[in-house]
Amino acid sequence: METKQSTQINKLKITSPFWKRYRKLMADDSIPFQWDMINDNNDVEVENDPFAAGGAADKSHAIANLKIAAGRIKGDFFGMDFQDTDVYKWLESAAYVLNYAPSDKLRKEADSVVDLIADAQEDDGYLSTMFQIEMPERKFKRLQQSHELYSMGHYIEAGVAYYTITGNQKALNIAKKMADCIDSHFGTGEGKILGIPGHPEIENALSRLYEATHEQKYLDLAKYFITQRGKDPEFFNKQNKADGADRNFFPGLDTIGNAYYFADKPVTEQTEPHGHAVRVLYFCTGLAHVARLTHDKDLMDSANRLWKDIVKKQMYVTGNVGQTTTGEAFTYDYDLPNDTDYGETCASVAMVFFAKQMMATRMSGQYGDIIEKELFNGALSGIALDGKHYFYVNPLEADPKASHGNPGKNHINTRRSSWFACACCPSNITRLLASIDKYIYEVNDDVILSHQFIANDTTFKNGVEVNQESNFPWSGDVKYTITNQNKEEFTFGIRIPSWSRNKYDVKVNGSSVDPELKDGIIYIPVSDSEVTITLSLDMDTKLVRTNTKVKDDMNKVAIQRGPVVYCAEEADNKAPLWDYRLDDKPRLTYKYEKSLLDGVGVIETSDAKMAQEDGDELYYTDDISWKPAKMTFIPYYAWANRSEGQMRVWQDINR
Amino acid sequence: METKQSTQINKLKITSPFWKRYRKLMADDSIPFQWDMINDNNDVEVENDPFAAGGAADKSHAIANLKIAAGRIKGDFFGMDFQDTDVYKWLESAAYVLNYAPSDKLRKEADSVVDLIADAQEDDGYLSTMFQIEMPERKFKRLQQSHELYSMGHYIEAGVAYYTITGNQKALNIAKKMADCIDSHFGTGEGKILGIPGHPEIENALSRLYEATHEQKYLDLAKYFITQRGKDPEFFNKQNKADGADRNFFPGLDTIGNAYYFADKPVTEQTEPHGHAVRVLYFCTGLAHVARLTHDKDLMDSANRLWKDIVKKQMYVTGNVGQTTTGEAFTYDYDLPNDTDYGETCASVAMVFFAKQMMATRMSGQYGDIIEKELFNGALSGIALDGKHYFYVNPLEADPKASHGNPGKNHINTRRSSWFACACCPSNITRLLASIDKYIYEVNDDVILSHQFIANDTTFKNGVEVNQESNFPWSGDVKYTITNQNKEEFTFGIRIPSWSRNKYDVKVNGSSVDPELKDGIIYIPVSDSEVTITLSLDMDTKLVRTNTKVKDDMNKVAIQRGPVVYCAEEADNKAPLWDYRLDDKPRLTYKYEKSLLDGVGVIETSDAKMAQEDGDELYYTDDISWKPAKMTFIPYYAWANRSEGQMRVWQDINR
Repeated sequence: METKQSTQINKLKITSPFWKRYRKLMADDSIPFQWDMINDNNDVEVENDPFAAGGAADKSHAIANLKIAAGRIKGDFFGMDFQDTDVYKWLESAAYVLNYAPSDKLRKEADSVVDLIADAQEDDGYLSTMFQIEMPERKFKRLQQSHELYSMGHYIEAGVAYYTITGNQKALNIAKKMADCIDSHFGTGEGKILGIPGHPEIENALSRLYEATHEQKYLDLAKYFITQRGKDPEFFNKQNKADGADRNFFPGLDTIGNAYYFADKPVTEQTEPHGHAVRVLYFCTGLAHVARLTHDKDLMDSANRLWKDIVKKQMYVTGNVGQTTTGEAFTYDYDLPNDTDYGETCASVAMVFFAKQMMATRMSGQYGDIIEKELFNGALSGIALDGKHYFYVNPLEADPKASHGNPGKNHINTRRSSWFACACCPSNITRLLASIDKYIYEVNDDVILSHQFIANDTTFKNGVEVNQESNFPWSGDVKYTITNQNKEEFTFGIRIPSWSRNKYDVKVNGSSVDPELKDGIIYIPVSDSEVTITLSLDMDTKLVRTNTKVKDDMNKVAIQRGPVVYCAEEADNKAPLWDYRLDDKPRLTYKYEKSLLDGVGVIETSDAKMAQEDGDELYYTDDISWKPAKMTFIPYYAWANRSEGQMRVWQDINR
Repeated sequence: METKQSTQINKLKITSPFWKRYRKLMADDSIPFQWDMINDNNDVEVENDPFAAGGAADKSHAIANLKIAAGRIKGDFFGMDFQDTDVYKWLESAAYVLNYAPSDKLRKEADSVVDLIADAQEDDGYLSTMFQIEMPERKFKRLQQSHELYSMGHYIEAGVAYYTITGNQKALNIAKKMADCIDSHFGTGEGKILGIPGHPEIENALSRLYEATHEQKYLDLAKYFITQRGKDPEFFNKQNKADGADRNFFPGLDTIGNAYYFADKPVTEQTEPHGHAVRVLYFCTGLAHVARLTHDKDLMDSANRLWKDIVKKQMYVTGNVGQTTTGEAFTYDYDLPNDTDYGETCASVAMVFFAKQMMATRMSGQYGDIIEKELFNGALSGIALDGKHYFYVNPLEADPKASHGNPGKNHINTRRSSWFACACCPSNITRLLASIDKYIYEVNDDVILSHQFIANDTTFKNGVEVNQESNFPWSGDVKYTITNQNKEEFTFGIRIPSWSRNKYDVKVNGSSVDPELKDGIIYIPVSDSEVTITLSLDMDTKLVRTNTKVKDDMNKVAIQRGPVVYCAEEADNKAPLWDYRLDDKPRLTYKYEKSLLDGVGVIETSDAKMAQEDGDELYYTDDISWKPAKMTFIPYYAWANRSEGQMRVWQDINR
């Protein structure tokens, strides 16, 4: 379904204290820092975990690669075959920052990047600096490994965003030229490559380009990539063989098998996610986007099927997904190990993209629930409070000794890094955080749905103004003031989060109401010129347990208050953290600590025990001696911002 | 300390029902089966897990390699560079079988193998078929990878055993010729290789050869290999470089680092095991052996230090060691994950060898405790009840779905295999089980120590006869009848197992006595011509817990009765096994089931609960609903002998 222009958002200003801090952090710290990184500015302070998943790196060379391709400087290509995307995702982040924090300096930098990209782009629209510099004769000839379409997809997303926000036509033209180049090479037509990319991304990018240009060919091409995937299981092998079986430039990708690429069968036959998590989720985002734009029921059914399996069977309580470091991949239903998981930051960011597309098709609370879960937990944990250190992997349980001492846990880093050899995550979390305004409302002809409690002042094109006040996630009191001067008749929807479904209170103009909860959403008709809605959410601290089909969380609980999942960290508790055990029905006290971790709500309890230290024997036949203990929990997203130490989301409980 | 010949064992016959079954199994099934395997006999039934750790294989070629080296047939070498050892360990197993089950057929086969080996051996004593067939110019030039000394060490052990038992002089001569060859190439003398093997084994082998021949040079050479290890951290690199940096025949071993080889520093500076578990433990066996024979205090201190760290900080309750599949290695103190561990069968077998050497130096109950633990649990689990299927890896928790679905658990096999590409484990467990008579008594001038409750009739060289009757491990009643016709004055020691130290009863000639427990052993003076000692051990079923420094067993218990550690298996309980929880202080009933698993003691309880199955949600805020449940436990060693399914040693408990 498409929305009348008249109902769309005209202007949105975020007033949430929680998110204003992050928005400022993006503008003042993260984006300038990443600019320095991709430009290899010498004066940037880099602090890396040498064992970082994603690979430690104090050098990017991403801008330099583009300059070489543009003929501006001489030199060799350096980096991953998708190194260009670090620039594109920076540009996309910069676009979003410029939308709320105009800056001449940033605008100039971003414009200069657009100019550079235009110079680097070939006349036919092609752009992938590794191929241009190192192996121009092999363009599009080894798509399993090449990331060419992935890279161009990221530019298209950036170009559309930058054009939309700044009006820079050149940025859009580059994107169209790229898409035209891809269109001329790929598809079912004669002489075209009947192929797919090794790493999805182009599908959603082309859909966004279609939305910006309304040129049907871009949507057709997006749909081609969605439906062609998995149709020819021999495609990659045939290309590899033709290119030269031994000419790998990304070894390992040739032997890992089609399932890793989510290309083992057509999506309409796929029942559950498998293989590389980010590949699956970028594909799902494009899938849902194309399904929505083309009203294709089979594709939407596929998207729903995959959504359901991921969210109901393979998602950590923090929203993280991807259970294994081997191939950065999904494993199987109900497998959720906490100390060996992967939970790549990019995968959580991609879950937000996927959820947004699902929500745009059908207003359902579940999509907003997942966006919220990622924003306050799984995705947000990928960036340090200083905006300049990142996690590639987000475990639910960490122990520095294990990370260094057990090879199966080497990928579980306990220190955030400035940068990575594969630097996909930093610019992915910034482009999400700089654009959270896109994730507050979902609008169609009749409904304005407020699905995220991110305080804001918003003007819609039909003249409706909504002012949402709250100190969420620390407070559950949300006040909407709707000014409707034109007395438009519409419905104002509010998502009631899953964690509050059993307890919430709604007042319209001061009077309690009890609207029906439909698919996680309440709907309030609006026709008056001013309507006030107040909502009180259930901010009781909850103990969450996992379905008993999941081995690793048995007899354990996670602590959650509102959308925020908490963890115990060694900075506040004694090691080893596994020696704590909560009493049955522990009294948990909450307080907001302004000076801790840039301001966080902290949860404490004295209803816990800690195991008495044992002697030198390894095994005993007596019971553990327990002593009374206090425990302190901080939001999961804020861990690893103090001293390096153990962390644990799931707590043992004696009940 | 060396023992007077007069006190040594003259004749020992095992009468234990438990062990007689295994002894018969070795003679009737395992050794004939392995003979067929190493000879690639077509009619052998092979049933393999295609994903087996150790690599699936339905072919050995080990005898064929020797025939090619001997010039009897033409062909190419096939297998690991230590493929020869599968023949040598078969020969050693055969020797032990011949000791208790004389067989013309087996004797002929074994003699023929000795003849073949003699033919394959070069004039200078060298024998390593891969090098002889494929790269004779590279002998001893890449010791980091070559396993030449490892292979010859295994022959020396086999040759000594076969000579000792059958008197076949040729078997000993081959061993001496090999040792002389090694002696002429290695050591501190001019023109010799100042080097060490990548894989220890030769150290213990040479010590055994010294004990058989009393030729000092063999002991000196053994001590050289013990003390040289770790002295020159550049040795392997220098050899590799000289041989040709890119001429790896065992890729990966060149980059893994000296710590993996336990060659990062001299053993006198080593404080804890690290790297490849079997390498460490073979080395420790040689270390303790050499330390004992040379009365070297520094080396014995080193052996004690390593023993203590392994047993008190890195050993599973089943006796398994080696916590990670990455490099088949130790990890770090108190790291004992149950569902990703390695616990190689060879490592448990090696622990028995190490313990035996420690015990031979100093009579202490702890060494007997570990021998017992391995014999009834960690080592024994490596072989199926049919004697013809084996585990390479011995996990404490298994789930076929996890093994197939999570790459970090691929090595946890839930089906035993007939054979492996790296077939070290099958013949290692058989040479242990065929020689358990070596692990019953420890004897010195004044003491006959009975440290294992393996019923037997034994005549010592001084004329003393000991008859030990018991149905251990199912019964804890042990009766010793000592016949001492010459009225020798000596002390009869009995190890009181650690699991029985708080409750046991001893009677001498029918009268209760309470001898002092010294280092886990009671000592009873004997001088009369007949003495009867009865011992009642504590056969109460125990709940064992782990030191609270260990994360993975918190709030869990293992069930142990006597020396036998129990597990829950899906064949007797409902899946998922993690949904069970024992009540506090569960009543556990024991019964022997003659027809189950070739006769095992089974433990059952009705004091357990099982979690009610949940709905479709992944997370819940209510408590689990528990329903009453029964649980059945079988001995750990007997798991995976019925249908493929989940297995779990550590049970959740509600206390």
